[in-house]
Amino acid sequence: MTVYALENSNGIAAGIARGIGDKLVQLEYKIFPDGESYVRVPQKPEGVAILVASLYPNPDKRIFELLMSVEAIKALSSEPLIAVVPYMAYARQDKRFLEGEPISIRVILKSLETLGLDGLVVVDIHKPSVLSEYTSIPSRNVFIDRLIAEYFHPKMRNSVVLAPDVGALERAKRVAAHLDAEYDYLVKERDRVTGEVKAMPKNLTVEERTVLIVDDIISTGGTMALAARTVLSQGAEKVYAACTHAVMVRGALDLLISSGISEVAATDTVPSPVSKISVVPAAVEELRSLLEELL
Amino acid sequence: MTVYALENSNGIAAGIARGIGDKLVQLEYKIFPDGESYVRVPQKPEGVAILVASLYPNPDKRIFELLMSVEAIKALSSEPLIAVVPYMAYARQDKRFLEGEPISIRVILKSLETLGLDGLVVVDIHKPSVLSEYTSIPSRNVFIDRLIAEYFHPKMRNSVVLAPDVGALERAKRVAAHLDAEYDYLVKERDRVTGEVKAMPKNLTVEERTVLIVDDIISTGGTMALAARTVLSQGAEKVYAACTHAVMVRGALDLLISSGISEVAATDTVPSPVSKISVVPAAVEELRSLLEELL
Repeated sequence: MTVYALENSNGIAAGIARGIGDKLVQLEYKIFPDGESYVRVPQKPEGVAILVASLYPNPDKRIFELLMSVEAIKALSSEPLIAVVPYMAYARQDKRFLEGEPISIRVILKSLETLGLDGLVVVDIHKPSVLSEYTSIPSRNVFIDRLIAEYFHPKMRNSVVLAPDVGALERAKRVAAHLDAEYDYLVKERDRVTGEVKAMPKNLTVEERTVLIVDDIISTGGTMALAARTVLSQGAEKVYAACTHAVMVRGALDLLISSGISEVAATDTVPSPVSKISVVPAAVEELRSLLEELL
Repeated sequence: MTVYALENSNGIAAGIARGIGDKLVQLEYKIFPDGESYVRVPQKPEGVAILVASLYPNPDKRIFELLMSVEAIKALSSEPLIAVVPYMAYARQDKRFLEGEPISIRVILKSLETLGLDGLVVVDIHKPSVLSEYTSIPSRNVFIDRLIAEYFHPKMRNSVVLAPDVGALERAKRVAAHLDAEYDYLVKERDRVTGEVKAMPKNLTVEERTVLIVDDIISTGGTMALAARTVLSQGAEKVYAACTHAVMVRGALDLLISSGISEVAATDTVPSPVSKISVVPAAVEELRSLLEELL
């Protein structure tokens, strides 16, 4: 097998290459003065090709690089090509919330399919059902709840795992199971006198407990910061925040720290100062499972 | 019919809407803090939908907006959708110049096809045969040679039309035919003593003649500037430069003016200070022809 990496995905790609015991080949890459990208596959794949491409930052540029790389690799070899996409861009635009909207993630999946991609591994995609709904490419979604739980386990005392909203409750439940902890979700409430918005735990009390708030993506950090301020005001002893994808737009980390969060940890699907947890072991496991299905 | 426009294509879209007598609808558009784009089609199409999307500047962002818009419009209506793409990005990466390269234009065409696009109108695409080679979408390529000739006709005296290289000779021939002028192409030569590179006309002399150099794209302006300096040093009376797509990266216009070119004119497929020639009349003609084929 041969592992290829887009420029911004070298770290995870190197880990995956080591994990499956194959060599890593860096794609050739440049940008023309008019803003168009150039990629080239410098060596033919030996057997199955694996292409590692995380789609952040500059999602549109990364998407087109991924599509071009798939096109180029498929022209070099008739062996299967599997894309490993640690961070899948546009995964949150997974349905038509309003009439006239695109299903953006469907655009990516359909384009990959028409270019001949044979397999797809993603990490903790916002709604895993898109993988079967919008494409027939065989795929795997890497869950990272165990990795998050293992990272925070030494820090947790009388702990509770919180989801920032009811939609993320299943995630909190999965992480809590690995920690043997309680879990709950937060409900936003506006104080009728002060107008202040709080995010209150639905059922549990957090007083003198260690709180771990888990989400799939931290983007602006607003949701996490609000949750942290509220549970600290309710007497939580410490608050930790964990996410899979540390998109972390400008100012997000400052906001989180100033909200009183003791530590933020994320996986390395998006390189950031808080990317402390490697997804490689879990990704290699799912990649192996997909290879067994395909070969 | 309903004409939709991406944000950067409003001018041409308005012209096309007027030309075919239908209304123009601006797509809703925003960019999220993480760099992902959002588009929404605010009204269902009445009959055939026409989507105008020029793919410059920021080609990768524009490409993904185009694909998302196609996905969204196709979900709203079962009537045909035609994309008018005045400037097609990545059209110069139309074959594998080196092994391991992608055919980038094929990526765009295949993605449009799989999302259900029913018709495609492009303007002066680098190699028109890509439209039949890489997709089965019915299409038209708008030629603009007559528009260029009409614009420069009043300025031409004892004139010669030059292609900057032999690959563009057919273009020079077509423009020259409309001007009843001679045509030729330029051959790069390096002076053995000074090392200076010149671009000499292959067969004709330019002394005391008006020269019009024509190309499809001016990008850095280097090719045009070199040609202009050479023919002026050979005694040409005046040099004009014309192109279809004024990509004009930073500094290109300064370079052209300092080379002694009297005037640069381009069409409006890419908005720029030299976009003086409207492609709308020619585009509407080809759009009408494609509509007849489809309906």
